[in-house]
Amino acid sequence: MSQKNFLWPVRIYYEDTDAGGVVYHANYLLFYERARTEMLRAMGFEQDDLIIEKGVIFAVRSVKVDYLMPAHFNELLQVSSEVSLIKSASLVFEQCIYRDDAILSKATIRIACLDAKVMRPKIIPKDLLEQLKK
Amino acid sequence: MSQKNFLWPVRIYYEDTDAGGVVYHANYLLFYERARTEMLRAMGFEQDDLIIEKGVIFAVRSVKVDYLMPAHFNELLQVSSEVSLIKSASLVFEQCIYRDDAILSKATIRIACLDAKVMRPKIIPKDLLEQLKK
Amino acid sequence: MSQKNFLWPVRIYYEDTDAGGVVYHANYLLFYERARTEMLRAMGFEQDDLIIEKGVIFAVRSVKVDYLMPAHFNELLQVSSEVSLIKSASLVFEQCIYRDDAILSKATIRIACLDAKVMRPKIIPKDLLEQLKK
Amino acid sequence: MSQKNFLWPVRIYYEDTDAGGVVYHANYLLFYERARTEMLRAMGFEQDDLIIEKGVIFAVRSVKVDYLMPAHFNELLQVSSEVSLIKSASLVFEQCIYRDDAILSKATIRIACLDAKVMRPKIIPKDLLEQLKK
Repeated sequence: MSQKNFLWPVRIYYEDTDAGGVVYHANYLLFYERARTEMLRAMGFEQDDLIIEKGVIFAVRSVKVDYLMPAHFNELLQVSSEVSLIKSASLVFEQCIYRDDAILSKATIRIACLDAKVMRPKIIPKDLLEQLKK
Repeated sequence: MSQKNFLWPVRIYYEDTDAGGVVYHANYLLFYERARTEMLRAMGFEQDDLIIEKGVIFAVRSVKVDYLMPAHFNELLQVSSEVSLIKSASLVFEQCIYRDDAILSKATIRIACLDAKVMRPKIIPKDLLEQLKK
Repeated sequence: MSQKNFLWPVRIYYEDTDAGGVVYHANYLLFYERARTEMLRAMGFEQDDLIIEKGVIFAVRSVKVDYLMPAHFNELLQVSSEVSLIKSASLVFEQCIYRDDAILSKATIRIACLDAKVMRPKIIPKDLLEQLKK
Repeated sequence: MSQKNFLWPVRIYYEDTDAGGVVYHANYLLFYERARTEMLRAMGFEQDDLIIEKGVIFAVRSVKVDYLMPAHFNELLQVSSEVSLIKSASLVFEQCIYRDDAILSKATIRIACLDAKVMRPKIIPKDLLEQLKK
């Protein structure tokens, strides 16, 4: 996994699993979002501040997730996040979930930047855009 | 189960279960809330209308849940709801979850009526209160 | 929406929403799965019976979801399900979520049929395959 | 908060919140369970090992939760865990959720130790019992 990638650990609890004995497929989206949130935080951007100070909120526009191998109760996974496309009012993230060296899942997530009041597309704040382009 | 009780069916999907093969304990609270919501709807009260028209929102103040027998994937359960205590700005619900005649869980849920803007206790709208007292 | 499509209603409760005031993006996957499960049930197939009697379990292999318009608390949605591709050990579903005539979300979900014991691909039971091809 | 208490941090993501703008009431049970799991881990006990090596699994028998103040998106909370009662095949935990010095929620959770195969009460493994009594 590329060293450029931001990595965030996720521990699997019972809440994440289903009666098939594995992590429930929808819950991977939670892990992917936690990692994106923490990547922004590591860059200095808190999403509650972005709403209040910049009037912008991020919304998921599309997701594409491949489930390659199942994850199980009590495992410690790593979630990677990389911004692969930056447009004026949207971002695309390429993300993976790893258990040690095994890739369990891959995802492409498209995010829109919205005006937090009217929920219409709004240009990504300049300082965030600059950080993302680094 | 008393005929006065409002009953609402809940089907168990994979989303509700955990790797122990049973319904995850926190998810019973979702079922209990669905049944309370549907009880109010059956009485003619939509919670989104209550927010807009009456300026009130309901918040859970305390829950007490007993887990007597496990529920499993694909089962069809019934959730009962009965209002056991009515105060000016709060309600207590007694609820149960049944699989056929077996009681799987019992709950006592205390709900506060709040001003939807300032989130402080507010008197329950008169028409709802009258319906509840019937 | 095509009349061939199986439709399943989904009511939005607080459990489904997030602090953005809309349905949380991961929860659409729950609604899509409920509709697939109910489509199989309407065709006469219970998934717990399929595990016990046929030794097969279905697993999500990939999802592609577009979020076109947000859904909100208390809305009553309809979820459509259509099988667009049938292979010996996998299926592809095309699904949509509607609020009245508006399409809120579209999804393509690839499902694998697995041996419930060893969790490896297994041929879809013949009677289910025949029903699906109708 | 007592120094004897085990503390575990919980970050609030969108997944945890609801359209009321606060953390959804059922999700407090997830946070309480994460903290109990991490308390056992800190004492040297992994629950997946306990199933395989000792044949025991823990199940929630009852919960009593008070919601004192709401938690919000992006907040960093602390969850405390303390064992208040130890019996041969069950435990009672007293737990709290804090935001800085404010107590947001208090809970009493009763846990049963079960035989992982037949799901009937089983004596808590001796080494775990000794650790808990310290």
